[in-house]
Amino acid sequence: MAQTSQTRTGSVPTDANAGTNAGTRAAAPTADAAGEPVIPEAADPALVDLLGLLAFGELTAFERMATDARMAPALADKIALGRMAAAEFAHFEAIERELTRLGVDMEQAMTPFVPALTAFHNLTAPSDWLESLVKAYVGDSIAADFYREIAGRLEPGPQALVLSVLADAGHAAFAVDRVRAAIDSNPAVAGRLALWARRLVGEALTQAQRVAVDRDALTSLLAGVGDLEQIAAIFNRIMAAHGRRMSALGLSA
Amino acid sequence: MAQTSQTRTGSVPTDANAGTNAGTRAAAPTADAAGEPVIPEAADPALVDLLGLLAFGELTAFERMATDARMAPALADKIALGRMAAAEFAHFEAIERELTRLGVDMEQAMTPFVPALTAFHNLTAPSDWLESLVKAYVGDSIAADFYREIAGRLEPGPQALVLSVLADAGHAAFAVDRVRAAIDSNPAVAGRLALWARRLVGEALTQAQRVAVDRDALTSLLAGVGDLEQIAAIFNRIMAAHGRRMSALGLSA
Repeated sequence: MAQTSQTRTGSVPTDANAGTNAGTRAAAPTADAAGEPVIPEAADPALVDLLGLLAFGELTAFERMATDARMAPALADKIALGRMAAAEFAHFEAIERELTRLGVDMEQAMTPFVPALTAFHNLTAPSDWLESLVKAYVGDSIAADFYREIAGRLEPGPQALVLSVLADAGHAAFAVDRVRAAIDSNPAVAGRLALWARRLVGEALTQAQRVAVDRDALTSLLAGVGDLEQIAAIFNRIMAAHGRRMSALGLSA
Repeated sequence: MAQTSQTRTGSVPTDANAGTNAGTRAAAPTADAAGEPVIPEAADPALVDLLGLLAFGELTAFERMATDARMAPALADKIALGRMAAAEFAHFEAIERELTRLGVDMEQAMTPFVPALTAFHNLTAPSDWLESLVKAYVGDSIAADFYREIAGRLEPGPQALVLSVLADAGHAAFAVDRVRAAIDSNPAVAGRLALWARRLVGEALTQAQRVAVDRDALTSLLAGVGDLEQIAAIFNRIMAAHGRRMSALGLSA
């Protein structure tokens, strides 16, 4: 791991490949003594958590897509992936504007979610182009479904922002098209990709649980739905949508 | 290298790490039998070459910056690099619009320059964050100076586009600030980074020569300046600017 050891004060190691950080200055601390973001009284802590989580999610999605573009087998694929990555960065900037409007420092808001998201991506680095497409489609869609369930519990203003940021940037059709074509020309890859998708879901649930345990405000938004039956219904909806996506890819869930 | 073998018909291996391309369809051929882009009569072949080279240069710069953002030692650095990468992609899209206006297929225009630029980047993969900053600053600036010399020989319309695309996205100040701080805190890194910069210049000249030999139309723009003395003057201007940038970084040229 990287040499930097502060994980909650704005200077965080953001990748296992951080390399030699010789001479890099640590950012000024922007959190209180306990490492919690200092947020203005008016801002809802659950909303700040959700926006921070989404912002870091978009930033890592941007990075990952742009990195995966290097594996693209053709120029047209590389351009398509680049365009989607740029759209993710525009989403990131939309969240940044909202947090600024709320008087919240974005880095502070993102910092609590860096370890879980970084761990997820480091544990699920795609080994080829098809794995990267499945990860982008399956992984991002499950995350988006989960965020949409939370967004349903927000005020109309923030809700509209969250939903617009979650809008598909064209990734779904692109991934389905490319993965189906790959399976058509070599049916043997379907088994490998189905296993890969199961691994992605498992790692995502592990990290989601880690976030849920750490972030009471965020969790309380979901818990606010009331009883366990409703939470089970949310989980069932998300898993049903996942099953439909796997079918669209030509993979068994 | 990747399995794909067509290097001039729109389906090109774009990275040494292309991985398994199982089942990926080749793009439809968009070039004539000799592999040369088919360009409309009205379009100047030298301008099409320059725009194709710039477009692929911006696309790879975008990819590289977004990839390097993974090595960023702090969230603020990661965000700054992401913002610059997104600006490069916007430049890429500006060139795409101009080529479309000229009736030229962008992939066709870029294809002749894929091997040289890909070779350059594969031979100069940074091993850490500081090397990536030096590469982005030193490498991109030399390329930009060279493109500006060519742009001086274009009509006012395309000239304005090329100059706007070459505008610094904030990378210079960012790189100088970070590299100087690193040298201040550990002077020993200066020697290693100066060697790295020399290697970058050497590889860049090698690939530039390769492009010059292959692309007569593009080369004739520069050769149009007349005599060898003028070409030597261009080279001297570019190297003098490089020397000033090395000084700004605190490195010996």
